[in-house]
Amino acid sequence: MLRNEVTELLQIDYPIIQAPMAGGVTTPKLVAAVSNNGCLGMFGSGYLNAAQTREQIREAREMTSNNFGISLFVPNEFNNSIDEINKANQLLQPFRAQLKIAIEENMKLPDYQSAYESFIDQIRVVIEEGVPVCSFTFGLPSAEVISELKQHNIIVIGTATTVAEAIEVEKSGMDMVVVQGCEAGGHRGNFINDVKESQIGLMSLIPQVADRVSIPVIAAGGIMDGRGLRASHCLGAKAVQMGTAFLTCQESGAHKVYKEAILHANEDQTVLTRAFSGKWARGITNTFISEMQKHEAEFAQYPIQNTLTQDIRKASVAQNNKEFMSLWSGQSPRLAKIQSVEDLIKRIVAEALK
Amino acid sequence: MLRNEVTELLQIDYPIIQAPMAGGVTTPKLVAAVSNNGCLGMFGSGYLNAAQTREQIREAREMTSNNFGISLFVPNEFNNSIDEINKANQLLQPFRAQLKIAIEENMKLPDYQSAYESFIDQIRVVIEEGVPVCSFTFGLPSAEVISELKQHNIIVIGTATTVAEAIEVEKSGMDMVVVQGCEAGGHRGNFINDVKESQIGLMSLIPQVADRVSIPVIAAGGIMDGRGLRASHCLGAKAVQMGTAFLTCQESGAHKVYKEAILHANEDQTVLTRAFSGKWARGITNTFISEMQKHEAEFAQYPIQNTLTQDIRKASVAQNNKEFMSLWSGQSPRLAKIQSVEDLIKRIVAEALK
Repeated sequence: MLRNEVTELLQIDYPIIQAPMAGGVTTPKLVAAVSNNGCLGMFGSGYLNAAQTREQIREAREMTSNNFGISLFVPNEFNNSIDEINKANQLLQPFRAQLKIAIEENMKLPDYQSAYESFIDQIRVVIEEGVPVCSFTFGLPSAEVISELKQHNIIVIGTATTVAEAIEVEKSGMDMVVVQGCEAGGHRGNFINDVKESQIGLMSLIPQVADRVSIPVIAAGGIMDGRGLRASHCLGAKAVQMGTAFLTCQESGAHKVYKEAILHANEDQTVLTRAFSGKWARGITNTFISEMQKHEAEFAQYPIQNTLTQDIRKASVAQNNKEFMSLWSGQSPRLAKIQSVEDLIKRIVAEALK
Repeated sequence: MLRNEVTELLQIDYPIIQAPMAGGVTTPKLVAAVSNNGCLGMFGSGYLNAAQTREQIREAREMTSNNFGISLFVPNEFNNSIDEINKANQLLQPFRAQLKIAIEENMKLPDYQSAYESFIDQIRVVIEEGVPVCSFTFGLPSAEVISELKQHNIIVIGTATTVAEAIEVEKSGMDMVVVQGCEAGGHRGNFINDVKESQIGLMSLIPQVADRVSIPVIAAGGIMDGRGLRASHCLGAKAVQMGTAFLTCQESGAHKVYKEAILHANEDQTVLTRAFSGKWARGITNTFISEMQKHEAEFAQYPIQNTLTQDIRKASVAQNNKEFMSLWSGQSPRLAKIQSVEDLIKRIVAEALK
């Protein structure tokens, strides 16, 4: 079960992809360690610009000659008014006061045109640097982008949370589809269905998608060990994408406090929130999430909300305070361990072959 | 993988339990068909009184000499005021008008004392009739009830939606635990965690529970075929409990319109609602659920809300109108088929042995 069309296409030994985790988790060190151990390391580069993306690729190249990939956010339009943005920002002042953050008077807000241009610049970097795998979340890239990548023999992977979305990924010409179950930590990749409709457990989602698409299905959400890999395979997936399991590895760039929060969390302590970024994401509940919950209707859209909360997240990290940082995690934190990437992969492979 | 301690204890050929579905689905015909085909049929007897429970057992006994079980609702206290009940009832008047239901002036409302006595009467019937398996949902039965059943060599099964609940089931002395993933249709069995915390996908829930309890784990939620059986086994479950897959079988007592609704539903069309019974349950969305959603805070508690909506559900059934009946379904309706119980079980076993 360990070798199949996915391992062949991606040129990896084991059907395991390290989930792209944006925000500093997927460092060159983590990505290279995963790729050096026979799996596919992936950069979560959604928040980076083209220059940063190129730098990370080159750093990883110095540490591995194996394949790795880049994951990008498909830019979505947004249209909050200045009033709405001010209101959303106002909600954050008590947290800034609590964390003793100096108020920035002229916060630079994102605009769609620049975000789109930056995305296209990143695509150019992926092609120029010859990164062999490029995945997308938050929707479908344009036909031009997909065809440009494919012309350069880059494997293109989409993200879906429902059967309808998986069908669209296949129709768009992408090579594989990551199906994200409700178990998954971090941002939801839903782009047709709303977030509530897209909370499908992998036990239901994998076989229903596998019955409807002919491109390989990659299962994502709550998979932490050989049990999850084998189960995903039984359900019809050809590979798994694992985030939280790699996040607590020694090589990951996640903050110590963040790793500790996962190690001490239970399966019933992750929640969906829009408070940090404006897009729904699953993380361990904390003061920021629970205090912001009642203001849900007033948050700015992604990526504006993400920009607004940036200073709070940074200060929380700087102060080693887990209560105001985004603690993205899937629903299986009890299975997380601090270990090396090598040990994690060896254990999964041994369990899978049992 | 098909024979293990669960099949031995339950004296069945295959590790498959037909989920107890209250409200007329699990007829003696369905239960007997499941048991005659090597699996465990289960009556969902939560809404029945002792006499009805006894009658169903005896009917099934005429059709099978194999083991089957009974599932009961653990009574929970409730305390709506007359005002709250009247308000909740008022919300239902437009639906009654639409369905041309004569308003019942003196609706008999449930009271906890009677509900509890009726539950104890059912326990007595289970013992007197020598039903070999008794499962519970909505919480833990008292130590006295559990010990009384076990003294009569009845296998006692609890229901859990989180690790903490599974640990309590084990501590209470029950023999096995059904772990109900977010994929599951019908009522949620959460009793410690609130319903949001208890929406854990089986990919996460099974291994985390299996690591923490030593009694056998039975997986429930979205499992429809041999893929789900094998996946559950990989994750650490010793058996599966399947509801929706049996619901659309020819032998089930579900209304034709209800079966059709499942056959035409997609994985993204089930929602959690309290509108029908006062307790959270997963079903296919329809007019009643979506129109009631905005009044969520005004519903009566279980089982009062259930009594209030009874005439609406009945009229909807009588009028072959799926818009006002409870269409409980798990998250895998695309995998449902109209078939005989024998064909369903044969197919699962063949797939599982592949």
